[in-house]
Amino acid sequence: MKKLINDVGNVLTESLDGFAAAHGDIVTLGAEHKFVQRKVLKPGKVGLISGGGAGHEPLHTGFVGLGMLDAACPGQVFTSPTPDQMMAAADAVDTGAGLLFIVKNYEGDVMNFEMAREMSGRDIETVITDDDVAVENSLYTTGRRGVAGTLVVEKVVGAAAEQGAGLKSLKALGDHVNKATRSMGVALTSCTVPAAGKPTFQLSDTEMEMGVGIHGEPGRRRVALRTANEIAEEMVAAIAGDLNAQGDALVFINGFGGTPAMELYLMYHAAVAQLAKHGIRAARSLVGNYVTSLDMAGCSITVTMLDDQITKDWDAPVHTPSLRWGL
Amino acid sequence: MKKLINDVGNVLTESLDGFAAAHGDIVTLGAEHKFVQRKVLKPGKVGLISGGGAGHEPLHTGFVGLGMLDAACPGQVFTSPTPDQMMAAADAVDTGAGLLFIVKNYEGDVMNFEMAREMSGRDIETVITDDDVAVENSLYTTGRRGVAGTLVVEKVVGAAAEQGAGLKSLKALGDHVNKATRSMGVALTSCTVPAAGKPTFQLSDTEMEMGVGIHGEPGRRRVALRTANEIAEEMVAAIAGDLNAQGDALVFINGFGGTPAMELYLMYHAAVAQLAKHGIRAARSLVGNYVTSLDMAGCSITVTMLDDQITKDWDAPVHTPSLRWGL
Repeated sequence: MKKLINDVGNVLTESLDGFAAAHGDIVTLGAEHKFVQRKVLKPGKVGLISGGGAGHEPLHTGFVGLGMLDAACPGQVFTSPTPDQMMAAADAVDTGAGLLFIVKNYEGDVMNFEMAREMSGRDIETVITDDDVAVENSLYTTGRRGVAGTLVVEKVVGAAAEQGAGLKSLKALGDHVNKATRSMGVALTSCTVPAAGKPTFQLSDTEMEMGVGIHGEPGRRRVALRTANEIAEEMVAAIAGDLNAQGDALVFINGFGGTPAMELYLMYHAAVAQLAKHGIRAARSLVGNYVTSLDMAGCSITVTMLDDQITKDWDAPVHTPSLRWGL
Repeated sequence: MKKLINDVGNVLTESLDGFAAAHGDIVTLGAEHKFVQRKVLKPGKVGLISGGGAGHEPLHTGFVGLGMLDAACPGQVFTSPTPDQMMAAADAVDTGAGLLFIVKNYEGDVMNFEMAREMSGRDIETVITDDDVAVENSLYTTGRRGVAGTLVVEKVVGAAAEQGAGLKSLKALGDHVNKATRSMGVALTSCTVPAAGKPTFQLSDTEMEMGVGIHGEPGRRRVALRTANEIAEEMVAAIAGDLNAQGDALVFINGFGGTPAMELYLMYHAAVAQLAKHGIRAARSLVGNYVTSLDMAGCSITVTMLDDQITKDWDAPVHTPSLRWGL
């Protein structure tokens, strides 16, 4: 294993210390590294809290700030955060208007956020994201996995919360965005979890994992390496077939961490051409490493069908370490 | 070789097509993919043009836009752009106040930008960046290499140009920022150039290349893998020793493409602690994949000593595909 680390036991805390120092104008770190919170809270706003295993950076810590999350709770790499983390975050960012949890659909995450909700006694709603069309049930989930589409939910709901929407309407909006969103991923290489010290799975030099999960968990099947156009064709067909919609969309090409920008833009080009065949037009775009799997090579395609509300909230100002515009 | 591509001959053009489509609100693509230009030019402003081999994305195309570059000319991967590219860009973005070329110190780049300057007959000044302290001369350079510090030069000079500074003063400012800036890199793995189809160099599982160049060219020496703190200690000692300055600085941890954000923030934490020992305080920061070497794992540390002018211009609004704040 070749990584820029000191001790596998301290990777998360040292990284969070660096993150908080680098972005001290936007975020602060909670006690015992339990959560990252927005530095300046907005009184009377519904508090948005997300979290999950580390290793997917910038998700979720990089999306804390104006117009997106109020707090993010990072677990150890690919490990759910514990309920006391979410309870501490809830105590820190609840300004009286209630809290919305945004949770990717993995059993550990769902269970721990639910425990925190029950134990905190606060007014909390939960949006669970499950945008991955690759598999119906999987290694860590009942139902579909929540992947890169979670960013879209966090951005859209975050904008509406910033503009004063109430808890019930934010819960409804989050569910609505999740339903309008589909994703699928492909891995060219495995990732390596620091504590494991070796690749999570093995792929030969001529294979790829179609439909891979963001922890390197299996997808639909292992297939021979193909061209970018062929990969985009299969992924878009799965997404568009499941969406069963036409019109304007946000097209989000997400790198898994080990794939350079040059290839991600090439995939954007390929995906847009394939989407056009299904009557879907890229009216908004996002290309980059946003929901990663450590150093895995590969990418996912996320498509969110746009309506007036989603478009307005996507375009609204955001000021976080990793997503920033309009301010 | 495992890459998301169609044909090694078309990687650059397909990627640029995707880039221009994804960022059509900010940039347009010149004829024959010769350059990327700012969509809305500002009449009477000095035009800033940079460029270089592709494979370092988002440098330089991702930094075209308000407050930074007016045009960027991408060569083939790790290959200088040709003079006709810079001449076409000059024709496109010269609004009458002259042009400033910002060129990384590689023999091919310097020669081709100089040929374009001579042949164009326009009023052009050139800033050459050479921030890499690793080696004095190298595979492709006489003198030091220009690396990630080039981003800082482009940002600072771009802000001053946006505010109306004239050509001579921008040339002086660019040279000043370059002199205030030092960088050094380390590689944990090689990159793979698509057209070559195999890694540029070989590193065993227990080795790293200290002082590596952004094309994977040799650095100071090949050494046994060390901890992040030990790596930061050596790189910061080289940078601080060469800078021979104390005070506030911009600290920029740049990923080479294959290293996840988690490790880059950990390196930021390590670098800041080492810099403090040399009397350098991180008053501004930047952490991410900005000046990459395709899929190489590793990072560089860049330090720019701040004065009032550099701080003001660094903080000024910027609106490009890959660097965006204050707007």
